[in-house]
Amino acid sequence: MMSVTENPNKRLKELADGVAEQIKKKKNPDVKLPIRTLSNTYFDEKSGLVRLGDKVSHRTYLNIAHTRKFMQTLMVASECKKIIDQNVTTSIRDLYYALKRTIPGTNENTVEDQSESDPIIEDLEAALDTLRERLHLQADRKGYIAGPLVVNDSGDKIDATKMGSSGWAIPSNVEPEMIKFEKCTADYVLVIEKDAVWQRLNQDKFWRDHNCLILTGKGQPARGCRRIINRLHNEMKLPVYVLTDADAWGYYIYSVIKQGSINLSFLSDRLGTPEAKFIGLTTQDVDKYDIPKNVTIKLNKGDIRRANEMMKYVWFKPKEWQHELRHMLKVNHKLELEALSSKGIKFITEKYLPRKIEEKDFLP
Amino acid sequence: MMSVTENPNKRLKELADGVAEQIKKKKNPDVKLPIRTLSNTYFDEKSGLVRLGDKVSHRTYLNIAHTRKFMQTLMVASECKKIIDQNVTTSIRDLYYALKRTIPGTNENTVEDQSESDPIIEDLEAALDTLRERLHLQADRKGYIAGPLVVNDSGDKIDATKMGSSGWAIPSNVEPEMIKFEKCTADYVLVIEKDAVWQRLNQDKFWRDHNCLILTGKGQPARGCRRIINRLHNEMKLPVYVLTDADAWGYYIYSVIKQGSINLSFLSDRLGTPEAKFIGLTTQDVDKYDIPKNVTIKLNKGDIRRANEMMKYVWFKPKEWQHELRHMLKVNHKLELEALSSKGIKFITEKYLPRKIEEKDFLP
Repeated sequence: MMSVTENPNKRLKELADGVAEQIKKKKNPDVKLPIRTLSNTYFDEKSGLVRLGDKVSHRTYLNIAHTRKFMQTLMVASECKKIIDQNVTTSIRDLYYALKRTIPGTNENTVEDQSESDPIIEDLEAALDTLRERLHLQADRKGYIAGPLVVNDSGDKIDATKMGSSGWAIPSNVEPEMIKFEKCTADYVLVIEKDAVWQRLNQDKFWRDHNCLILTGKGQPARGCRRIINRLHNEMKLPVYVLTDADAWGYYIYSVIKQGSINLSFLSDRLGTPEAKFIGLTTQDVDKYDIPKNVTIKLNKGDIRRANEMMKYVWFKPKEWQHELRHMLKVNHKLELEALSSKGIKFITEKYLPRKIEEKDFLP
Repeated sequence: MMSVTENPNKRLKELADGVAEQIKKKKNPDVKLPIRTLSNTYFDEKSGLVRLGDKVSHRTYLNIAHTRKFMQTLMVASECKKIIDQNVTTSIRDLYYALKRTIPGTNENTVEDQSESDPIIEDLEAALDTLRERLHLQADRKGYIAGPLVVNDSGDKIDATKMGSSGWAIPSNVEPEMIKFEKCTADYVLVIEKDAVWQRLNQDKFWRDHNCLILTGKGQPARGCRRIINRLHNEMKLPVYVLTDADAWGYYIYSVIKQGSINLSFLSDRLGTPEAKFIGLTTQDVDKYDIPKNVTIKLNKGDIRRANEMMKYVWFKPKEWQHELRHMLKVNHKLELEALSSKGIKFITEKYLPRKIEEKDFLP
């Protein structure tokens, strides 16, 4: 396995040399790729991460079913080498356009649309054991951080206590060679599903009163956001608490932050944070915090099906989660973070969160 | 008309006093609201803005068709006064939750969902001639700026030349009492539809080489983003150039930045920038810049209908726009900004934009 900080150019060259060698020997050119489907994914109880198994597929040139993808794999690899050599970064959409052309003498295009090039990028990440970001590719970014953290981004020092109402916007690429942690005196990281709630906490300077970092991923966090949570936990040794809506979607967001996701299982080590804890909301909070019943939302069929499915997932097996999911089905409602506002605008920062943290009232 | 910087509390109080007065006199309580539909909207050629007409409707308490909305109008006004007095800000979703309750002795809720409270907020903005942001309400935010601009946000000085790969994230509320421009030495603002393209320009430090601000709204810009473009133009006297895809959606984004939108026509003065110019892409650029034909995208039925509709809009009447729309229909394709990458990753920053600006090759 390549070290995380290694330049993937060496591996790209090995891949290309292997193919060139096969051609010189008049063999059928072939590249080996890990299989990235549910059938080759498992939950590793020891690490607490969703992981990729060791099944490998062969993509060969002289196989009509593979030829197009084989060509695309080498084109993507070659374009990545080019942009790494130029020391520039590009978006996965740009990469698609840079590759697209009509093959001379045919009506065939090299790639038809972006849904063809994106999975090839993930194949290469898995095959080279690297990150898209190290291949100098970036995708959508979203998410913000505020609190006692100073980062260095390409020579610019950014102090996340001095970013006004904005916060520091989390870039697409937060690998250590791009983003260095210069100073961090926070006691923990609070990850918040919704930006509106983050803005509320930032306005109340929750991060100052509680000496923590507040981070929002704006819904399901982008990769840059999951990676920075992972780095803050592993490098800065910060506990991670996750605050989402009390619904299946919120619990799913938590599970992806904690143990990774199936389609990116080859990156769980770098994107997952198995020690993360769930701070709320839960449907049990309604009684515990005396939240008015009229701000709860009745479960629909999809919610009920999803809750039943989640009860069967290995990572929701701990008794506390089984209890919460059963409770949700019993009371037949869910609720959003904004529901806490019915107790007053500052209830979340002055009552709810401090009591949760004080009582260590977390789900595992 | 209230001055833009005036605290809307005075107007909120007048509204409430008016209703209280009517009740004391045993009259049917009534509030006057501007009509915010297409029928009361017009294009003001002189200012170049979409504007609200002067038709007014009455919302009265003793009219079964109005009673519910009348109650909601006063509830929203009262909640706004409360949060302004507390000097806190809240989200429009939080406001909805803060208002929601069951009316005692009935099965009726004050508001059923957020689609009931959001238009009431816009009614109040129009009636009080103020901005949602001045009522201490915020909505979704997105968008980033980089370049020679220093702002002061609640006492924090933020230098947009020192924000690494992130840029300064544009907050929801960018009114002058929140965001002060401390220093700006840029020559112009380049507004970019797509964040991926913004990231490319930021990485090449386009803003340094061309002494400009680069700003992305990530698709259709949020209100905060449109407002800051307006302020940079009016207060800092910066020309504004807009760069979008060469398609109906891109041209629509440009038109909203330039002359405002119908549903927020009462805010066009504050959100529109009629002097903005369109820098590209156009379908005519394909020949002019020798862009490969295989990265253009064939128009679908919706594109064709939309282009024909747009040719009839007053604000697309200038001959240059009529020519471009006719040209798009003739060549029967559109193209995205990323298409420029087929000429090389740095083509946009090193060739396309410098030549466009040098030749002043803009659409009005």
